[in-house]
Amino acid sequence: MENLSSLLMVRQLLERNENGHVIATCRKPAAATGLINMKNKHPERLSILQLDLTSESTIEETSRTVKEKYGVLHLLINASGILSIPDVLHPETTLSKVQKSSLLLSYEVNAIGPILVIKHMWPLLKAGGGHVTDREFAVVANLSARVGSIGDNGLGGWHSYRSSKAALNQLTKTISVEFARRKEPIVCILLHPGTVDTDLSRPFQRNVSPAKLFTKEYSVQKLLSIIDGVKTSDNGKFFAWDGQEIPW
Amino acid sequence: MENLSSLLMVRQLLERNENGHVIATCRKPAAATGLINMKNKHPERLSILQLDLTSESTIEETSRTVKEKYGVLHLLINASGILSIPDVLHPETTLSKVQKSSLLLSYEVNAIGPILVIKHMWPLLKAGGGHVTDREFAVVANLSARVGSIGDNGLGGWHSYRSSKAALNQLTKTISVEFARRKEPIVCILLHPGTVDTDLSRPFQRNVSPAKLFTKEYSVQKLLSIIDGVKTSDNGKFFAWDGQEIPW
Ligand SMILES: NC(=O)c1ccc[n+]([C@@H]2O[C@H](COP(=O)([O-])OP(=O)(O)OC[C@H]3O[C@@H](n4cnc5c(N)ncnc54)[C@H](OP(=O)(O)O)[C@@H]3O)[C@@H](O)[C@H]2O)c1
Ligand SMILES: NC(=O)c1ccc[n+]([C@@H]2O[C@H](COP(=O)([O-])OP(=O)(O)OC[C@H]3O[C@@H](n4cnc5c(N)ncnc54)[C@H](OP(=O)(O)O)[C@@H]3O)[C@@H](O)[C@H]2O)c1
Repeated sequence: MENLSSLLMVRQLLERNENGHVIATCRKPAAATGLINMKNKHPERLSILQLDLTSESTIEETSRTVKEKYGVLHLLINASGILSIPDVLHPETTLSKVQKSSLLLSYEVNAIGPILVIKHMWPLLKAGGGHVTDREFAVVANLSARVGSIGDNGLGGWHSYRSSKAALNQLTKTISVEFARRKEPIVCILLHPGTVDTDLSRPFQRNVSPAKLFTKEYSVQKLLSIIDGVKTSDNGKFFAWDGQEIPW
Repeated sequence: MENLSSLLMVRQLLERNENGHVIATCRKPAAATGLINMKNKHPERLSILQLDLTSESTIEETSRTVKEKYGVLHLLINASGILSIPDVLHPETTLSKVQKSSLLLSYEVNAIGPILVIKHMWPLLKAGGGHVTDREFAVVANLSARVGSIGDNGLGGWHSYRSSKAALNQLTKTISVEFARRKEPIVCILLHPGTVDTDLSRPFQRNVSPAKLFTKEYSVQKLLSIIDGVKTSDNGKFFAWDGQEIPW
């Protein structure tokens, strides 16, 4: 979660009130200087835990720790996602460059990982949703992407990223249906943050007009305001940063 | 491709005219008695090749053989798909049963495999689309499933199967956009065969009313008639057996 909008998310979550506890996860806590600085400012209210989305045992370990330390979870934001990794993952410009390894890695991090996190956090979310807060349900917000929309796909390319986000969308929808059917006090939504100036978008910003490239601060503020306003009837929906629904 | 609607597809493709050549692939050609019987009836017009969707080298080998033997391809039907495999893959009834291994296997066979087939057959389809037939394009038909539709997902469950088909839908759409942009003579569509009485649906037919459970013959006939009638403007679309478009 280091070095990206998630760090800003942690900051805004900590700064918006004086009581809430925030648990931030990342692959290498010792190297997460931004999070460590924030922990120094809010030693009681921020926990930093190690979690790698490709390793289910780290997800289970995190959920055990959260259970022991807090017992409940009111909000789960799955913010991680990969589009390109130098020398490993290159967003495809054409079908002839599609590689099985890129598809599998993207599915593992962008679709499977977030769903395993929800699976293991489910009991904590259930407890959190029934727990006294200003609303009667816990919220799961999965960061998807407009390019994951099949209906909105007019440009092609980015096969691995696009299809991993479509898979995430379908998995989130599937989970939201079960939560509704079981009357779980949990609402799941999908969010598109806009095109945000982060490491993820940097290699692809050339064709983005400055007015359409958001600062992390702006995007995070917009996403948190959607999360704040979530209603039970939003369960299973896919929203852009401005609250507009995105077609599947 | 043995033991399923694809065998019927091969038969109907062979029987509808007296000239066309059909290439059927399966994982174990020596054990494919249905195909072997058909080959005995149509020795000149049917080829049986070995292909495992989880092994890209078998896909490449098949495309090399087709290239050497025929040089062109007019129609590619990706009919394979997995929903359950005894002791290996169980369609999930709840989030708590979701396993990473099931998700990965479903993605490999249902989404990645068909796309790698199209990648390696692309030059042959291009040649086939430009080649004199009754229409000026080749057709790729990927068998998807209505339960892969995110918008239509009202029941939940079957996380691996549903999300693998959503990924297939997004990949097919992505490819169709590139083919259109490059003015390739290839049209890609997605098809839902209905609920068909096959090995795939057998364990789940209890809740299907008899009128809604199609015979393989009926479904294959419907699918082939959609393929026959495909227009350039259908590129990238998702059709049910009755020709109705399915939402993403
Ligand atoms: N930026 C945009 O324009 C944009 C547009 C649409 C959607 N999105 C989506 O918004 C979300 C946030 O994107 P961003 O721009 O903030 O991305 P980013 O700056 O590239 O950050 C991605 C994060 O994912 C984490 N990550 C990668 N692999 C991981 C793994 N195996 N386990 C755990 N964490 C892992 C990274 O953690 P490390 O610090 O450990 O590397 C990093 O913090 C993503 O889901 C992205 O797809 C972004
Ligand atoms: N039946 C339905 O009600 C229904 C409904 C909606 C969608 N569909 C879709 O329609 C398509 C056909 O389904 P069906 O009912 O005819 O299924 P089926 O009878 O179960 O046949 C599935 C086929 O997939 C092949 N296959 C499995 N793994 C493979 C691999 N790794 N490599 C190559 N081939 C592999 C199998 O080949 P082997 O002979 O080698 O095992 C088998 O021939 C599938 O895509 C399915 O998802 C079916």
